[in-house]
Amino acid sequence: MSTEAERRAMRIAVEAAERVRGSTSPNPPVGCVVLDAAGAVAGVGATRPPGGPHAEVVALGEAGSRAAGGTAVVTLEPCAHTGRTPPCTDALRAAGIARVRYAVADPGAAAGGGGALLRAAGLDVAGGLLAGEVAAGPLRAWLHRQRSGRPHVTWKYAASLDGRAAAADGSSRWISGPESRAEVHRIRAAADAVIAGTGTVLADDPRLTARGPDGEALPRQPLRVVVGDRPVPAGARVLDDAAPTLLLPGGDPAAVLAALAERDVVDVLLEGGPRLAGAFVAAGCVDRVLAYVAPVLLGAGPAALGPAGVASISGAWRWDVEGITMSGPDVRISAVPGPVDARPAR
Amino acid sequence: MSTEAERRAMRIAVEAAERVRGSTSPNPPVGCVVLDAAGAVAGVGATRPPGGPHAEVVALGEAGSRAAGGTAVVTLEPCAHTGRTPPCTDALRAAGIARVRYAVADPGAAAGGGGALLRAAGLDVAGGLLAGEVAAGPLRAWLHRQRSGRPHVTWKYAASLDGRAAAADGSSRWISGPESRAEVHRIRAAADAVIAGTGTVLADDPRLTARGPDGEALPRQPLRVVVGDRPVPAGARVLDDAAPTLLLPGGDPAAVLAALAERDVVDVLLEGGPRLAGAFVAAGCVDRVLAYVAPVLLGAGPAALGPAGVASISGAWRWDVEGITMSGPDVRISAVPGPVDARPAR
Ligand SMILES: NC(=O)c1ccc[n+]([C@@H]2O[C@H](COP(=O)([O-])OP(=O)(O)OC[C@H]3O[C@@H](n4cnc5c(N)ncnc54)[C@H](OP(=O)(O)O)[C@@H]3O)[C@@H](O)[C@H]2O)c1
Ligand SMILES: NC(=O)c1ccc[n+]([C@@H]2O[C@H](COP(=O)([O-])OP(=O)(O)OC[C@H]3O[C@@H](n4cnc5c(N)ncnc54)[C@H](OP(=O)(O)O)[C@@H]3O)[C@@H](O)[C@H]2O)c1
Repeated sequence: MSTEAERRAMRIAVEAAERVRGSTSPNPPVGCVVLDAAGAVAGVGATRPPGGPHAEVVALGEAGSRAAGGTAVVTLEPCAHTGRTPPCTDALRAAGIARVRYAVADPGAAAGGGGALLRAAGLDVAGGLLAGEVAAGPLRAWLHRQRSGRPHVTWKYAASLDGRAAAADGSSRWISGPESRAEVHRIRAAADAVIAGTGTVLADDPRLTARGPDGEALPRQPLRVVVGDRPVPAGARVLDDAAPTLLLPGGDPAAVLAALAERDVVDVLLEGGPRLAGAFVAAGCVDRVLAYVAPVLLGAGPAALGPAGVASISGAWRWDVEGITMSGPDVRISAVPGPVDARPAR
Repeated sequence: MSTEAERRAMRIAVEAAERVRGSTSPNPPVGCVVLDAAGAVAGVGATRPPGGPHAEVVALGEAGSRAAGGTAVVTLEPCAHTGRTPPCTDALRAAGIARVRYAVADPGAAAGGGGALLRAAGLDVAGGLLAGEVAAGPLRAWLHRQRSGRPHVTWKYAASLDGRAAAADGSSRWISGPESRAEVHRIRAAADAVIAGTGTVLADDPRLTARGPDGEALPRQPLRVVVGDRPVPAGARVLDDAAPTLLLPGGDPAAVLAALAERDVVDVLLEGGPRLAGAFVAAGCVDRVLAYVAPVLLGAGPAALGPAGVASISGAWRWDVEGITMSGPDVRISAVPGPVDARPAR
């Protein structure tokens, strides 16, 4: 049903979407490739920051007259509603697009229905192309937010092979290698918000900014969020002017996420420490675990995860490993919650 | 220098050696393939239990008259000395073998020199074929023992993603999945000895035998070793008649390994618990770590590794990850000691 050219185009669209991830919230990071009538790539686009054009409009602009009779390959079903920008369905029809291939259907009530609308207008429309890849990739956080109303939370931590977040004397620079640390900065740059507890801020005085290999600030910075009642000292690095910072007293995970959702946050990186992470896990508020396990043995020191409401092995939080890769000398494990019916009553 | 047929033959020899691993100590588990003069496989053999024939003799026996003018492909340099069996060099010459290809040179003074002897006798002899694979594979423990005088120790443990060996209430059945547990039984069956501390024996009353999927005892059982001063109760499962058991009071890791070396033990599986493992790590007596990391979060419970003499991150034991694979739902991480010059002064 989809041609090889369309599959290739979708992969290009996914890459384009990945490149803008983090700059589009609350809008989804979408990628679009316009193929001309002969099947050659005529335009590539991705969502511009809020208020700017959607991916389809960017790709159509690049394709110009070559779009007529061509195919639009989009990671998300084209929108049919007027928000800050006019509906993409109009733009596709105006450009004379004959076929539309999209990956994931738009679950939103307001924006959804674009596919049906285009089909009714006589276009050849089909969804589902590389849907799994897109849903687990660039659209992951946004889809989660659409479905649950809550931002998507990735708990990231670095630990020794024996599960310690630091040595006995509290030292933790550096457990993980330079490759893992560089990757974390790139992940921060693509997140809308980074969360740490007052414990981590008071102990480590971290910047929580996204920085490049030479320590320079990356172009995008997430909102920095410090959770907890203890005051953050005026001179703390997290309060510098490198990025905005939100101090949230209290610390109920669901309340924290609700406060962030109000601020249009879609993609959250929870950076610990162990106690706050334990509270998030216990509240069912972690949607992905990203563990950087360094091949280091410590035998003493604080554990990577604090109390998470588990007393017995039968009550353990069970996850599914989504991927394992080497990150320099470290092992990077990505895990997502296991099937709901496999979770113990707690 | 080596033909494709010889490489293929060496892979068959490696597989043959792997199959007898555990049944040959203190002799090395060796595999041999005899190719006839046309390069076809004429015989395959592996070391028989102590007192039985070596791999070369088994393979030559299968090849019969087809060995004349053929090639012997062996994982270890053929022995040149008379031990419990006559020298393999004699057997190869008597069979009329024209070429010998081996992987790893024999580091032993008494048995070494087989390659040179055969070359002097006019055979075409070369070593080094798939040497890395063989040295890290079937001959790993034996080579370690030859070089260091000490048995090779693999510390195996199962832990949650956050590094806990058990939940807060001590329950640990089952952290890891059935695939990992089955693999551990196969590894036990190939080891010469399995070590546990009195803490583990008193807490869990483990059998420490190698069992199949239905709980039946596998044909080979390792020596069971319990280390520690506390008495093991007469009814303990580790004292049943399923396998021999050695009780070793004291617990200095080097002394434990010396006692096992005296008993011809080459390949040791250290099964914990955390305190004994910490002592072995601290003493530099662990040669490989085999971690079964289950995608489970506990947030409380005993750590996988007890005190190992590390106070600060700069004094951490640094390892190199040798391999990561999935084992059912679990992540299996194999690590070996990092380069000696990368180890901190302690
Ligand atoms: N290896 C890693 O990846 C990593 C990452 C981060 C931190 N760390 C290490 O972790 C250590 C700090 O540990 P930590 O556990 O104290 O840090 P933490 O989790 O960042 O902070 C804990 C504090 O957060 C506040 N908090 C807010 N909501 C909470 C909730 N629902 N549950 C529990 N606490 C809540 C509480 O402070 P209030 O009393 O102020 O409310 C609590 O004391 C540092 O040494 C740091 O180096 C390691
Ligand atoms: N997840 C896993 O892979 C795994 C594996 C094994 C055990 N476990 C768990 O570990 C728990 C037992 O922990 P544990 O640490 O007490 O067990 P352990 O390490 O098996 O036993 C510790 C005991 O070993 C003796 N010992 C002998 N030499 C020693 C030395 N050099 N250093 C320290 N101790 C030495 C000491 O007893 P004496 O006073 O008798 O000399 C010490 O108390 C159990 O709950 C078990 O379930 C988990």
